[in-house]
Amino acid sequence: MTETPTGAPQGALADPAYVMAAVDLLGAVAYGELAAFERLADDAKLAPTLADRVALSGMAAGEFSHVQLLTARIEALGADPYAAMEPFRAPLENFHARTQPSDWFEGLVKAYVGDGMAADFYREVAAYLDAETRETVTASLADTGRSAFVVDRVRGAIAEDHRLGGRLALWGRRIMGEALVQAQTVAAEREAMTALLAGGVDRPGLDLAAVGRMFARLTERHADRMAELGLDA
Amino acid sequence: MTETPTGAPQGALADPAYVMAAVDLLGAVAYGELAAFERLADDAKLAPTLADRVALSGMAAGEFSHVQLLTARIEALGADPYAAMEPFRAPLENFHARTQPSDWFEGLVKAYVGDGMAADFYREVAAYLDAETRETVTASLADTGRSAFVVDRVRGAIAEDHRLGGRLALWGRRIMGEALVQAQTVAAEREAMTALLAGGVDRPGLDLAAVGRMFARLTERHADRMAELGLDA
Repeated sequence: MTETPTGAPQGALADPAYVMAAVDLLGAVAYGELAAFERLADDAKLAPTLADRVALSGMAAGEFSHVQLLTARIEALGADPYAAMEPFRAPLENFHARTQPSDWFEGLVKAYVGDGMAADFYREVAAYLDAETRETVTASLADTGRSAFVVDRVRGAIAEDHRLGGRLALWGRRIMGEALVQAQTVAAEREAMTALLAGGVDRPGLDLAAVGRMFARLTERHADRMAELGLDA
Repeated sequence: MTETPTGAPQGALADPAYVMAAVDLLGAVAYGELAAFERLADDAKLAPTLADRVALSGMAAGEFSHVQLLTARIEALGADPYAAMEPFRAPLENFHARTQPSDWFEGLVKAYVGDGMAADFYREVAAYLDAETRETVTASLADTGRSAFVVDRVRGAIAEDHRLGGRLALWGRRIMGEALVQAQTVAAEREAMTALLAGGVDRPGLDLAAVGRMFARLTERHADRMAELGLDA
């Protein structure tokens, strides 16, 4: 019952329930990165300049390299990466369908806020994994220079047009809300992953109060990100 | 007047007309790779399985790494990569708009036949470039494992459904036709690039008969590619 867990011991890999949970998490992150790749590649077409379009396409390609990292780890754990990714298709596609950006800036805010929130959540959960799986997850969540680009473009635009700031602040809150809805769906359906958070006989886990504190941390980091963009959370 | 040219001498880089032509060619290839990235990322969504979707997305990401190679060389030649790419936006977008695949297999055939033809053409032209620019172009045209994947999928599908083979053969011819129309538009508008092919006082070039033979080679290679896929050219 600690909030700075040392992760699952190496021996956890002999426990089928643990492996199933780790594969589940890797599958979720992998599908998330694949979907992020597709959305960024799509949203790049909304770019106002060719330079911005190339920049966002480059970030999309960066996301894809993470997918390969994750599928390799899933295979190393003896599972089929595509079967592992499949259960997360519906919630992630639902999330993206409900948060279609209507312009370039909404796309940027979505990429920054949505992927940032997902990365925070997966990093929290990764703390309960064995060292090698944890490293794969955290490496695959590394910021590929996207943040600085998005912050620069969004701050520049709202400095010129204050009404844009109001609209994007609303948009950021909607992204947050939709993400929470989908996360709850996943949590309700994927028992293996919630079991990972709950811990095991020889593995640390979270009690309900700790889950509450985790959500408080995620909300706080979301507010920090909105502030970075110059938006009210 | 040779068809196995040794390329432009290093000294050509001091000739502004040569540099302009080289930048023009690099810009064309760069926009082509950017557009190929976007189309592959789009077409991946048509994949029948998650494994195929990941495979095609991986090829898209591979194309993008070529864009970075090319823009770096354009900058090294003292030009703005986005300005260099811009003139090729309209012809390439027109080509893609006129050749929207209606299913997964049309997307695969388009990727194989269309990009193969473009690569052959750029390789022919690259022969008239200085060594370093030529290497950038040929490296950026390298097959990133896409061919084997496409050949496998298309041959497998037409073995099971012969009518698909007939439809895809027609589709391949249409890709060829549309590509030629756009190539002629580019040739008519971009004098710098045609000047490159025509050569200069100290640079080898092509006469009209040699241009004809070049087109014969391109057509022959197109027929080879169709045969690889198991389709009539």
